[in-house]
Amino acid sequence: MHGPSPRRPPMRAGSLRDGMTSRRDRMNHVVLTGDRPTGPLHLGHYFGSLANRVRLQDTYEMYVLIADYQVITDRDLPGSIQRNITELLLDYLAVGIDPAKVIVFQHSAIPELNQLLLPFLSLVSVAELSRNPTVKDEIAHSSQQAVSGLMYTYPVHQAADILFCKGTLVPVGRDQLPHVEVTRLVARRFNERYGEVFPLPEAMMGEQPLLKGLDGGKMSKSRGNAIALSATEDETAALIRKARTDSERLITFDETNRPEVANLLTLAGLCLGRAPRDIADEIGYGGAAALKRLVTEAVNEFLRPIRKRRAEHTEGDVRRILAEGNERARERAVITLGEVRDAMGF
Amino acid sequence: MHGPSPRRPPMRAGSLRDGMTSRRDRMNHVVLTGDRPTGPLHLGHYFGSLANRVRLQDTYEMYVLIADYQVITDRDLPGSIQRNITELLLDYLAVGIDPAKVIVFQHSAIPELNQLLLPFLSLVSVAELSRNPTVKDEIAHSSQQAVSGLMYTYPVHQAADILFCKGTLVPVGRDQLPHVEVTRLVARRFNERYGEVFPLPEAMMGEQPLLKGLDGGKMSKSRGNAIALSATEDETAALIRKARTDSERLITFDETNRPEVANLLTLAGLCLGRAPRDIADEIGYGGAAALKRLVTEAVNEFLRPIRKRRAEHTEGDVRRILAEGNERARERAVITLGEVRDAMGF
Repeated sequence: MHGPSPRRPPMRAGSLRDGMTSRRDRMNHVVLTGDRPTGPLHLGHYFGSLANRVRLQDTYEMYVLIADYQVITDRDLPGSIQRNITELLLDYLAVGIDPAKVIVFQHSAIPELNQLLLPFLSLVSVAELSRNPTVKDEIAHSSQQAVSGLMYTYPVHQAADILFCKGTLVPVGRDQLPHVEVTRLVARRFNERYGEVFPLPEAMMGEQPLLKGLDGGKMSKSRGNAIALSATEDETAALIRKARTDSERLITFDETNRPEVANLLTLAGLCLGRAPRDIADEIGYGGAAALKRLVTEAVNEFLRPIRKRRAEHTEGDVRRILAEGNERARERAVITLGEVRDAMGF
Repeated sequence: MHGPSPRRPPMRAGSLRDGMTSRRDRMNHVVLTGDRPTGPLHLGHYFGSLANRVRLQDTYEMYVLIADYQVITDRDLPGSIQRNITELLLDYLAVGIDPAKVIVFQHSAIPELNQLLLPFLSLVSVAELSRNPTVKDEIAHSSQQAVSGLMYTYPVHQAADILFCKGTLVPVGRDQLPHVEVTRLVARRFNERYGEVFPLPEAMMGEQPLLKGLDGGKMSKSRGNAIALSATEDETAALIRKARTDSERLITFDETNRPEVANLLTLAGLCLGRAPRDIADEIGYGGAAALKRLVTEAVNEFLRPIRKRRAEHTEGDVRRILAEGNERARERAVITLGEVRDAMGF
C-alpha cells in the first residue's frame, strides 16, 4: 500500500495500536477520492492516482466522486459536462476500476451530501477560508475577474465530500493537503460541539515520481502535452514524436540537466515496470529517435489492455453504473445527514 | 393588500401591464416568508409580519420557512432549537396561519433546497458577498469572535430559500432589502447563463408603523421589552405596568417629544383598530396609569382569541403539520433542482 501508514481515526480509537496498523484495522478504512470532469484522463492521472485506486479497491470501502459542481467554478460551458462525465467513467472502467467494488457518484446527484455544506460553513471562519493556500493559489491562477463564492468555500465542500461517507483515507497530491486539513478541522469542531459523528480523515500522499508533460511542462490536456488514456496508437505515436528532447546521442537519465529526456525515460519505466536508468543504458548511443521509438512502443503496449476494456463498455453501461453509484452514495448520505441533524438537535 | 403593488416577474412578462396588476396577475404570485426559530414571537412580529401573512394566505400560494440553519449562526445551544420550532409553529397556528393554505417547512429538512447553494455561490463574487450591508451589520453586531462562513454566505442561502419555490413576492423589513437584491442578482445571472428557470422576486415592504419595545428601545425578546403572543394576561399586565412613560397628566400622541407614550398609544391603536390620537384624546388627563390600564385591556382583549387558538393545538399537531409541510416543500424543491441540473447540463 502506498502513502504513510494510515492511523485509525480517533472515533474508533478503541482498537488503536501504536505504530503500524494491522490488516484488520486497515480493512475498516473508507477511501474517498475523485476527479473534476474537465476532460479525458491521461497517463499522468493514471500513474498519479488511478493505479493507486485500482489497488485500493480490493482492500477498502471506496467512493469515487465526480466533482461536477467544481467544474462550474472555472468553466463557462455547461454543455460539455455530461460528455466529460461519460468519458471519465469510460476511463475509469478502462483502467480497471470495478463498479462492483467502488461507488462512483456525481456530487450534484446527492443533495444530502451538499446540505452538509451549511452546518460545516458555520464551523469555519471567513479568516480561515481566506487563509487556505490552495484557494489562494486557485484564485491567483483563475481566469475569472472575480473570485466566486463557490471557489472561496471549496475546501468546505470538499469536507462535505469526504465526511458524508465518513471517509478516513484521502489520497491526495501535495497541493491538496491543506484541504484535508480543513476537513479535519471541520470534523473536529463538529464532534466537539455536537458530539462524535465524524472520523478525522488522513491524507495519503502518492509516492510515484511526478510525470511531466511531453514538452517538459506540467502535464495537462489543455497544453496538448499529455497522452490521454483514450488516445489511439497513432495519436500516441504522433504526440511522442513531437516530444521535446535534446541532440545528444548518448541517452542518460539526468533529471537535473536533461529533464525532458529523463521524463520520457520515467514514462517508459512506469509503462514497462523498469528503472529509467536501465532503459537509458539499453538505448545507449541511439539518440532521441531510438528513445522515442522505445517510449512509443512501451506506452502503446501499456495502453493496449486499457483501450480494449474501454471499447468493451457502452454509454448505456456508464449511465447504469452512475445511476447505481448515485443511489448507493445517496443512501450513505441520507444516513450521515440524519446523524448530523440529530446531533444538532433539529 | 399591503406593500407596493407587486409587478409580475419578467419571466411571465407576456401578460405584464403598466401600472396596477390585475387580480388575475396577482393570483400567480408565490410568497416566501419565514422566521428564525430564536424564541417566542411577540406583538412586534404580529403587526410587522404575521398579520400580513394571514391576509396573504387567502390570495397567494405561500411558503413559510423556519430558518433553522440560520440559528446556528448566532446560537451555541442546539438543544433549544427543536423547542423553539414547536413554539414557533404554535404561534403561527395561534395567529391564524392555516396549514391547509400555507406550506410551513424547515430549512434543514429540504436537502434539494440546500443544494441550490452550490450553483448559486458560483454566480456571486466574494467582493459582492463582502459588500452586502446586512451581512456587514450582522457581523458588526455578532458576539462571535470571527465571522463564520455560514453568516458570510447568508444572502445566498436566502436566495436558495426564495428561489427553490420560485417565490415572486418576499415580504421584508427595510433591513432585508439588500438580501432580496442578492436573490434577484442570482436569479438574473442564472437565467442569463443557463436559460430561464427563475422569476425575479419582488420585495414587499410593510406599511405598518414600527412598534418599539416597552422601554422605548428596539422590541426584542432578549431585552425583556416585548409582549410575547404566548404571554398570559398577568404576564402582559406586569410587562405593561413596567413600561416607560412620563409624568405628564395629559396624554398626547407626540412621537418626537414623548416617544414612549406615543408607542403605547400606537400599540393600543393597533390592537383596537383605532387611531392613536383618538385614544389619547379619550384618556385626556388620566395620566400614565389610565393609559397603561387601557393598553393592558386592549392587548389582553386582542390576544384572547390568539391564546384560545394556541391552547387548541398540541405538540402532536405541530409535528404532523411540519412533517406535511416539509414533504410538500420537498416535492417543490425536487422539481426545481431537477430544472436547475437540466439547465446546467448535468
